[in-house]
Amino acid sequence: MNYEPVNLQEKFGRFSDRWAPKIIAQLNDYQIKLVRVKGDFVWHDHEETDEVFIVIAGKLRIDFRDGQIFLKEGELFVVPKGVEHKPFAETECEMILIELAGTVNTGNAGGDKTAPTDVWI
Amino acid sequence: MNYEPVNLQEKFGRFSDRWAPKIIAQLNDYQIKLVRVKGDFVWHDHEETDEVFIVIAGKLRIDFRDGQIFLKEGELFVVPKGVEHKPFAETECEMILIELAGTVNTGNAGGDKTAPTDVWI
Repeated sequence: MNYEPVNLQEKFGRFSDRWAPKIIAQLNDYQIKLVRVKGDFVWHDHEETDEVFIVIAGKLRIDFRDGQIFLKEGELFVVPKGVEHKPFAETECEMILIELAGTVNTGNAGGDKTAPTDVWI
Repeated sequence: MNYEPVNLQEKFGRFSDRWAPKIIAQLNDYQIKLVRVKGDFVWHDHEETDEVFIVIAGKLRIDFRDGQIFLKEGELFVVPKGVEHKPFAETECEMILIELAGTVNTGNAGGDKTAPTDVWI
């Protein structure tokens, strides 16, 4: 077996593009991904999975149809499956995402922020 | 819906016992847990799930039958299902665990470090 730790900062250092999640680990049929975000995302939901956000650096706002949440470094939130949400970051935010493998970042919303689901770093 | 962030440090501040994982979030049928560890754990495996370790503070060594790994703050490792392992921390280590809900910390090994699987904080 390969006994190499996955270092979060080292992995963040390998990419600079935004809204394009990178897979760093797999847990059964779930994946742990890193993503950089800045600005406004699109309204979307994930019909097949809850989605965990953990903020590693910066701040994130997530808008919901009936409210919003503000997350800062060291804070976590679970967006339930089927709940529409729209992330926003005024300045760049680094996050961990945890969700079912194959989850598309934009759900069924499509658009130019839709990223591949199979990129490991 | 309840739009309250889960703050990792605030949650760690709520308990001081060791080797007793506390649930802070649920993602479908998976749970995110916090745990404090120090000293030697027992050899065990989890037949039903991979297990993610993320070190938040301190250092962790995980022994395997054919090697070992050293994790420090900001590092992650996935122990595959069925692989025997034994965590060890020389000084106190704070970690996130991610695994299937209901996973017993000692697997089938039993003993006095076996903790309840349903404690939320």
